[in-house]
Order: sequence, then C-alpha cells, then structure tokens
Amino acid sequence: MNFELTKEYVTMIVTAIGQQDGAQLKSELDELFPPDIANLLYELDGSQAHYLLQLVDTEIGAEILSNIDADERTALLKDHFTSEEIAQYVDLLDSDDAVDLLNEQPIQVREEVIALLEDRDQARFILDLLHYPDDVAGGLMQKELIKVNASSTVSECVEEIRRQAEEVEKVYAVYVVDDDQKLLGIVSLKQIVLARKNTRIGNIVTDDIVFVETTRSGEEVAELMQRYDLDAIPVVNVQGRLLGRITIDDMVDFITEKAEEDLQAISGITGEAEEDDSVWELAKARLPWLVVGVVGSLMGATVIKQFENELSQMAALAAFIPIMGSTGGNVGIQTSSLIVQSLAEKSGITTGLGQRLLKISTVAALNGLIIGSLAGLYVYLIGEPQLFWVVFTSLLAVVVLASFMGTITPLLLDKVGINPAIASGPFITTANDLVGISTYFGIAHVLLHL
Amino acid sequence: MNFELTKEYVTMIVTAIGQQDGAQLKSELDELFPPDIANLLYELDGSQAHYLLQLVDTEIGAEILSNIDADERTALLKDHFTSEEIAQYVDLLDSDDAVDLLNEQPIQVREEVIALLEDRDQARFILDLLHYPDDVAGGLMQKELIKVNASSTVSECVEEIRRQAEEVEKVYAVYVVDDDQKLLGIVSLKQIVLARKNTRIGNIVTDDIVFVETTRSGEEVAELMQRYDLDAIPVVNVQGRLLGRITIDDMVDFITEKAEEDLQAISGITGEAEEDDSVWELAKARLPWLVVGVVGSLMGATVIKQFENELSQMAALAAFIPIMGSTGGNVGIQTSSLIVQSLAEKSGITTGLGQRLLKISTVAALNGLIIGSLAGLYVYLIGEPQLFWVVFTSLLAVVVLASFMGTITPLLLDKVGINPAIASGPFITTANDLVGISTYFGIAHVLLHL
Repeated sequence: MNFELTKEYVTMIVTAIGQQDGAQLKSELDELFPPDIANLLYELDGSQAHYLLQLVDTEIGAEILSNIDADERTALLKDHFTSEEIAQYVDLLDSDDAVDLLNEQPIQVREEVIALLEDRDQARFILDLLHYPDDVAGGLMQKELIKVNASSTVSECVEEIRRQAEEVEKVYAVYVVDDDQKLLGIVSLKQIVLARKNTRIGNIVTDDIVFVETTRSGEEVAELMQRYDLDAIPVVNVQGRLLGRITIDDMVDFITEKAEEDLQAISGITGEAEEDDSVWELAKARLPWLVVGVVGSLMGATVIKQFENELSQMAALAAFIPIMGSTGGNVGIQTSSLIVQSLAEKSGITTGLGQRLLKISTVAALNGLIIGSLAGLYVYLIGEPQLFWVVFTSLLAVVVLASFMGTITPLLLDKVGINPAIASGPFITTANDLVGISTYFGIAHVLLHL
Repeated sequence: MNFELTKEYVTMIVTAIGQQDGAQLKSELDELFPPDIANLLYELDGSQAHYLLQLVDTEIGAEILSNIDADERTALLKDHFTSEEIAQYVDLLDSDDAVDLLNEQPIQVREEVIALLEDRDQARFILDLLHYPDDVAGGLMQKELIKVNASSTVSECVEEIRRQAEEVEKVYAVYVVDDDQKLLGIVSLKQIVLARKNTRIGNIVTDDIVFVETTRSGEEVAELMQRYDLDAIPVVNVQGRLLGRITIDDMVDFITEKAEEDLQAISGITGEAEEDDSVWELAKARLPWLVVGVVGSLMGATVIKQFENELSQMAALAAFIPIMGSTGGNVGIQTSSLIVQSLAEKSGITTGLGQRLLKISTVAALNGLIIGSLAGLYVYLIGEPQLFWVVFTSLLAVVVLASFMGTITPLLLDKVGINPAIASGPFITTANDLVGISTYFGIAHVLLHL
C-alpha cells in the first residue's frame, strides 16, 4: 500500500515489457491498485501501455482506464486500441466514466463502441447520459444505483442489492420510488443492516432528503453535497423521476478541478495547462494574458509619452511609476479574489452593491493612508519633498480606484455567466496598472503646474 | 429542501424571537436541516442565536454547532453559553468536531467542559485527540468507528453496528482487528448485507487496504483518499493499532479550505479573510503584502533615481517602465502557479531541476520573442526607433529571468516547508518588478551609451 512510483521501478517495468516477460509483469501489477497502475502508464509509451493493459483482467483494465487523465487516455486509445477492445472496457465502466471516455473519442469510434457493447443496459445508460453537458448534474451522474419500490420488504431490497452487487460498487443508500419511478426518499445501508427482514421499505424510508434536477450546475451540486455532508445525491427529472445519482468521489474530483481552474485563471493561464504539457502548449496557455498585459502596458506607455515634457523637467517623477502600477495591481487582485470567494459561497444572504463598495472603500482608504505615508516618507528620504503630495494623493486614489475595479469586475463577469476568477488575474492587474499611471500623471500635472 | 435564506425569512424569525414565540419558531426550525439553521444563525445576534438553539433538541443543536464556522462559533459560545450548556452539546458531537470546538475555547472553559461530560467514552476520545496538530491525520480523525475482531461472525458484527448505531452515524465499512487491536483489513457494509449470518469476518475481510499513520499530513491524506476513491480511511499508530478514521465529508472540507487558502495566498491576502469580516480585519489581512509591494517598488524607485540623468536626456525611456514591471510580474505568477500545481500532484515522478529550468526557459524564450516583437513594433509606431533593441532585449531577458524566479522560489519554499502558493502571489510580482526595471535600465545604459 502507499505505493510510490520511482524511476527504478519504471525502468524495471520497461525492461520486462521489452523482454515480453508477461509472468513477471503480471506478478508486479498484482501488487498495485488500479490508480497506481494508471500513474505508471503515464511513464510508458502507447504500445507499452497497451501491452500492460492486456496482461490484467478486463475489469482491472477498465478501472485503470477510468483513472487516466482525459488527454493521455485519448492519445492512448486513439493509436493503440481497436473499437472492439475499447468496447470491452466500456462494458465494465460505471456509466458516468463510460460517457466521459466516449465523449473524448471521435464520433465514429464512439458509435462503433456503443454498437459493440455486450451489456445492452450499459448502452442504454450511455445513450441517456450522452446528451447532458458535462458540468451539470445530468452530466455528472451515473445510472448505477439500487432502487426499490416503497412496497417491497427489506429482504427483497437485499436481494436487489445482491443482484446488482457487481454493477453498483458503492451503495451508500437504497433509493425508494413509487410505481411511477418518482423518488420518495432513501433508506441508508445501515438501516438495511439493522432492520428486520420483513419490514416494508415504505415504513423506514427517510423522505426528507436533498436531491437535484438534471440541470443543476456542478458547482451547486458540490455546494449542496458539502453543506449537507452527503455521500451521494439523487438526480431527478422535472417530474421528480429518479434518473441517477452523483457520488462524493466524483464530486471531490470536480471540486479539485474547479479549484485548479480558478488558480490558473487568477494566474493568467488559459486552458488547462500542466507543467508536463509540451513547450508549445505551455507557451500557448500563457500567451493570451501576456499579450493583454503588454497591450495594457503599452497603453500606459502612451500615457507616459504625453508627459515627456514634465519628465524632462523632473526626471524623479519616473521613479514612482512602478509603485503606482504595482499597488493598483496588488489591491485589485486582493479585492477581486475576496469577491470571487464570497460569490462561490452562496449559502448566506447577498450583500447589496452599495454596502459592498462602501465597506471596500473604507478598507482601501485605511490601507491607502498607511502605504501613502510610507511612500511619502521615502520622498523626503531621497530629497524630493516637492513630490510628497503628488505621491501621497495618487497612492490613496489608486488604492480606492483599484478596490472599486476589483469589486465591480468579478460581480459583472458573474452576472453575465463568465468565471469571475478570470477577473482576479492579469486582467485586473493590467487595468489597474493603467489606472494607476494615469491617475499619477494627472495628479502630478495638476499639483506641480509643470 | 434546497432551502434558500432570504432577508424576509430572517426578519420573520427575528420578529418571532422578539415576541418569544417559541411555538412558531419550533415549527419553522422543524422544516430546516441543521446546516441551514447554522446559516440562519449567522444573521442573528448572540442572544437570539442562543434562544433559537434552546428551542431545538440537544442533538440537533450539536449538529448545528458543528456546522458553524470557527470564528462565529467562538464568539457565540463565549458570551452566551455556560460550560454546562457547552458540555451537553459536546457529549453528542463526533469526537473530531468536539475537539475542534474545544480547541477554540479558552483553556479554562475547555477543562470545565471536559470535566462536565456525561459520556466518559467521549471524554476519553477527546483527551486522546487533543494532542494532535489539526492538520495531520491524527488531528483530522474521529474515534467513532465500528471495529470487530477477525474471529467474530457477521451477526456479531451486525450487533456491534446496532450497539453503536447512535454513535457512528456513517458506517461505510467495519474495521477488522486482531486481539492486539492491530488493523487487519475492512469489510464493507455491502459485504455485511450480503454475507451469511454465521460467516466469520476473517473469511470475508479485504486485507489489501489503504491506511495512514497519525503523523501523515492532511494534504497527503486528501491525495490518497482522492486517488483511491475512499469514503473513509483508517488511522493507525506506529504499531499498526487502529486509532480512528477520517471520513470523506471532513476531507472535502479540508480540500476546500486548502484551495481557498491557496487562492488567498496567491492574491496576497494573509490569514483567512472573508468579505464579511470587519473593516479592520480586512485591512489587516491585506496590509502585509501591500507593504511588501510598496517596499519593492520603492527599491525600484531607487534604481530609477540612479538613471535620472539618462531620463532627462531621453524622457521616452520612462514610457517602458510599466511594461518591464508588469511583464515580469505576469510571467512570474504564471510560472510559479504551474509549479505550485505540480507540487500538489505528487503521484508522478518528480522532474529534475535542470530539466524543469530548461523547459521553462524554452517556453519563456518563445513567449519573450513574441511579446518583444509586439513592443518593438510599438517603438517604431511612436517614433522612437533608437529604443528598439533596448526594449526588445530587455523584454526577452525579463521573461526568462522571471520564469527562473517563478520556478525556483516555490521549489525552495516547498523544500523548507512553507506553502509554495505564497510565492505565486505578490512576492513574485514584486521581486520581478524590481528585476524587470533593473534589467531594463542596465540594458538601456549599455546599448544607448547615455
């Protein structure tokens, strides 16, 4: 357990593959959990990975495949697996994982694989799930669950669990439906264990439960599962009929992915870059926001060019260009990330815009006074006292303006349905750079009568 | 279900509290889940919250308290609850939640409450847990679990579940131990449901399981639970004796909290600020990094002051100060956030520093060439062609240098045990601001012979 992948281990595996030493490889792989084998596959080329996968049971193989990242999986399946081979694995995957895998395939392969499935229930599940977007409850759910009628008994329920034991890996609870398949409530597995065999399910059902419709956003599902500490949440259609469930392990992956996306958005990386992507992919992921930054800075340059005259008269003015830009940027990113955070926590009452801005301006004024004084002190230290009021007033103005921008931008983006985390990154720093410089030279122009 | 808190609802509750209308309030609260009542309490003052909590069953009250944020809970308990009242709730909390709550209390209250507990098992659990730091497995685990000896039968196991049904809310699996309490493996609740009553637990135990020692970091526990899709993970001591378990709902909270901390670190916010904190708390959370930014920029100002002479001769030089600073900052934050991300994903093989830097420099050079050309074009447009090589070379150098800094800083911080996300925020932008400006003026000095 707690397997750690080392270079030596990979070398040993690669050598064994080179020697086609199936027996040794099999005994090595027997020691590993499928997610560890998935990590091992990242270190191999496609034909090596294909060879390894053929050595393990199809069921283990399916579990390994469901643990590989989408990109790597697509590449692996594309060049090294026939549709027949893929269908064998898809037959054994949970329906949600099966749909994810199929969605990554070219449409022709997808149709071939579905046609080749031996488990016709699975094929039907997949066709049901394929038409949901992947970030709403319908796209996140799996069809595998234990469902019983309210009129059945506990022992009939146990029989149903036994019948589906292979299909439904994690049970958590049994969903109780009426004759129209409408969701009435749940009975936890613990209740099943403790109840008498002939008890009617309808008598022990908990009907006060949390469920979602297929159209609910993934973020809201995550918030609900987290708020109510749920292991699984049932998904229903508008008529209240039970369609599937979302389990917590899938939600954990969803939450982690979203957190990563936010962190990337705030750092100005587009797409879903990872350090081990190719040089070209990495350069492409960074370029858009770098260019935005450059364009913003060049607009700043144009502003500064207007004050060339003032600058030749008083070159010391240039010394405070960086502090205006960077303070604006820092304040902007701080403000917007707090707003992004409180947008993500939807459980409380929303504060009005006016109140928000008032509070944020007070905080800004407080901080502005402190850092304005610091910079003011520096002005005296370097012997440019005539710049005191220019630097002090500009910094104060920059902090307040940047706070405003940092508040309004994410709120606006959220309103129009764009991830507000994007606002917290380079966009806000670039905009505030520009605001900072313009404010500074404007104030210098007025106060210094240059 | 899917309760949404509105201003009208809060007003209605507050009015009812004012009229001491216990009956109406009770019937309102009966409709809500405990986490929703917790959200409602945030909108009330301490004595109103105290009044409401006294209206519900102690068990519901305990669940509500375990759902309130640490800060708010501390304030609420401090002024409005006696140690006797607190002890009533602590008796009914899961041991991990009980410890969290007690850790927030002054030491005297903590000792009083522990002495007042009626459930002596709970008191022992709490004393066991109190000495673990809160971010390692020992500090995250709860003592409540179902544990049976390998020699017992399935029906004895069911009896044990029944006996502890109230204590252990979520069972997931039964932990199997030997006579020395050493963890041998688990039997899932599903297996218990499906097994025959007289089967020996030792015959159906899965012994190939993932567990952690008490000293494992929370991040590693999260990574393991996520990698292996675990609902709960057993925690053992160095001798392998079973001490407790960590359930997935607590891990989801841990993951969300860490993601929020990273986002705040990267945005230059210290502590755990939220938009609804007080003005003073918010100002304090932002000030440290703002001051770092100011100090960095003033160091930049000092550099620029050295070139006052050059600036008076060629004021247009000042126009490119912002692009150097902001590009350095943007590249730095992009690079370091990718490094932070790959540090967080520990499952693969670690790339060597040399290889990392080589790849990152290639990406940097590629992007540097593109944005350098953009800025170079602008130099011609504004009619300052003599600045072309200065701006182009400086930008290229800045991008490469910033990439280096953005790679090395988080790696270094991670080595010495500091959260590398801190490096991705204002620290890296400030440092790169300074590097950018120095590089630019250095190159200008050499190339222009001013």
